[in-house]
Amino acid sequence: MYRPQNLRIPGPTVVPQAVLAASARPLINHRGPEFAALMAALTRALQDFLRTQGDVLLLTSSGSGGMEAAVANTLSSGDRVLLFVNGAFGERFVAICKAYGVDARRIDVPLGRAVEPDLVREELAKEKGKDAAKAVLLQHNETSTGVLNPLREIAEVVREADRLLIVDSISGAGAAELEIDEWGVDVCVTASQKAWGAPPGIAIVSMSERAWKAYERSDLPKAYFDLGAYKAALEKGATPATPAVTVFIALQESLRLMAEEGLEAILRRHQNISRATRRGIQAVSLALFADEAHASPAVTAFRPPTRVDARNLIRVLRDDYDTIVAGGQGKLDGQLVRVGHMGFVTMTDMVAFFSALELALKDFNQPVEPGQAISAALRAYAEASAPAPRTRPAATVGSRR
Amino acid sequence: MYRPQNLRIPGPTVVPQAVLAASARPLINHRGPEFAALMAALTRALQDFLRTQGDVLLLTSSGSGGMEAAVANTLSSGDRVLLFVNGAFGERFVAICKAYGVDARRIDVPLGRAVEPDLVREELAKEKGKDAAKAVLLQHNETSTGVLNPLREIAEVVREADRLLIVDSISGAGAAELEIDEWGVDVCVTASQKAWGAPPGIAIVSMSERAWKAYERSDLPKAYFDLGAYKAALEKGATPATPAVTVFIALQESLRLMAEEGLEAILRRHQNISRATRRGIQAVSLALFADEAHASPAVTAFRPPTRVDARNLIRVLRDDYDTIVAGGQGKLDGQLVRVGHMGFVTMTDMVAFFSALELALKDFNQPVEPGQAISAALRAYAEASAPAPRTRPAATVGSRR
Repeated sequence: MYRPQNLRIPGPTVVPQAVLAASARPLINHRGPEFAALMAALTRALQDFLRTQGDVLLLTSSGSGGMEAAVANTLSSGDRVLLFVNGAFGERFVAICKAYGVDARRIDVPLGRAVEPDLVREELAKEKGKDAAKAVLLQHNETSTGVLNPLREIAEVVREADRLLIVDSISGAGAAELEIDEWGVDVCVTASQKAWGAPPGIAIVSMSERAWKAYERSDLPKAYFDLGAYKAALEKGATPATPAVTVFIALQESLRLMAEEGLEAILRRHQNISRATRRGIQAVSLALFADEAHASPAVTAFRPPTRVDARNLIRVLRDDYDTIVAGGQGKLDGQLVRVGHMGFVTMTDMVAFFSALELALKDFNQPVEPGQAISAALRAYAEASAPAPRTRPAATVGSRR
Repeated sequence: MYRPQNLRIPGPTVVPQAVLAASARPLINHRGPEFAALMAALTRALQDFLRTQGDVLLLTSSGSGGMEAAVANTLSSGDRVLLFVNGAFGERFVAICKAYGVDARRIDVPLGRAVEPDLVREELAKEKGKDAAKAVLLQHNETSTGVLNPLREIAEVVREADRLLIVDSISGAGAAELEIDEWGVDVCVTASQKAWGAPPGIAIVSMSERAWKAYERSDLPKAYFDLGAYKAALEKGATPATPAVTVFIALQESLRLMAEEGLEAILRRHQNISRATRRGIQAVSLALFADEAHASPAVTAFRPPTRVDARNLIRVLRDDYDTIVAGGQGKLDGQLVRVGHMGFVTMTDMVAFFSALELALKDFNQPVEPGQAISAALRAYAEASAPAPRTRPAATVGSRR
């Protein structure tokens, strides 16, 4: 039976048909001129979107592999770092630092709240003398809670203190504003299956000049994730080991679609859809998890109705309404529903999501009228979209199917 | 202009249309029941083909990532190991051990020759006392020279000496006989884009009980490549980080096609095509590089005609005859041509290769008659195929295009 899914997890995101088709092209030689041209095009496009002239390296791995590369290439055994944690991916940085013997001082922020620049300033002020923290690590967009940390302001504080800034923007880049060079982000990690709308398999890592200086001093073991080898190979249009060729081809196609829309329009679309999603959630009396002032443009987390286990709601959405959302991670398991709206998402996708949510809530005996969430979301979307010139409405409203 | 390529590098191999189409299916939730079913099916199929009841773990990385996982999960800092090197991928094991501070004693074997069991016995006999080598590392099929090491006999020697046996069978598994449990291979690495005929992006690592015991003692840093985390995640039908979902789907389809043919028939096809390839090469007076007694069923390396740089011959094959082969690696650059014949290769593919080679050799003023290599190859193929019952001729001779 044909039952198309509305894949609304915060990555892998929905991959457009054109991108899927590109990933089914015949294989090519990863050491030949075609692949070298592909690598050059990918690198240029990613530099454009990430707003950097620095190196952008493509690893065949998940985003977590990119996080590990960020740590292993810039830090040394026993180095002290400041690690701000406001969710499950902050925990992942903690685990990586621990595995490599990096002395990470973790500063926890309540889940659902952002890392505030003032907190970063205070904590950095405590770091003095020769054992002071060499680097600050944090998430740009914490996927597990739907919080967007104010990276621009945080980066300013870190620059003033002259420390290395290592950022996991796996689910942020391409969905939220990010100016790698202007803000001074030294290492930034993202991944193909998030806002880039390609299949998973590629971690994307940017390296600043400062980051390369740290690389020269780094003594942590690295082989597959040795970014120096990626840089050297890229100069010959290749990768150190066999890359996920079909995913690379797909990513080029998704970057082409993104270039057609333009970065500014993409970011505005994410903001508008994100705001509309929050208004829709609230319209059916569900509680948003993230601080509204720092709500993510990529993913929205909300609590299920009182006395409903989120896992059950998620199961009904999946089994009865073919709508695939994510739950809470770690200690938030059972307490959260997370709906992704990054990448090639349209308002139509969110209308489909809300129609499923309304019906599922009904099944849990919630007092929900058909169209209640949808109307609120569409109203918010219309208001948000109004001021901006509607030059490409087809890119944001309309069905792919 | 439509110019289909004959991709004859030793991986990525040609991916059948059905497998490419599978990799273009819509994305699914990597933490949902569909993916769990996919993981279970992949694991079972790979255990069948690898002839093991042990754990088979799937990493989103190239095969080199799998080699690193093999080292990082079973060895400890300062551990002594014996590393047999007969090509570029042996050098890769050396580099990985060096990066992790593993004390690898390397034993070099002349390029083009196999690692002989007697050599392994002699070298192991020198390893006595508490600082004795804990493990033996080597390639099963050395892709860079086209040599198949006699793993069955080597494994017997290593088992007698009770050391850990870590094998890179990246380009061997699925093309050459390999009995992981029966022979006692503790860690075996292979990769999706080799004989498995899927796109690149997945490293496949098997772990024996002995290997897991070594894992418990291992102190090398590991996070992304922590095989314990893969085993724990697999029990829940998932992976620790986002996997290359589309490549996983493609691999399932290629394993389905392989199961239709059957392992025995697959191995016989590789042997027959490999032998036919060697006879074709010799028929146009080119010198095979590998010792005939240990010729690889997956890739054949040969020297270009006297006074012809292999790079030029490779370029003419590519630019004028749309035939993509590989060159020598490291110190063999310019001296070798390597033609891959692993995975879903048919004799027809090799006839196409030889037609290109004959024409290219003509361009280099070599005394070659049209059909000279092709007839010799087909003759050898017919002879080799004759004794075996020809139950599925369509699987070995016939065109995909």
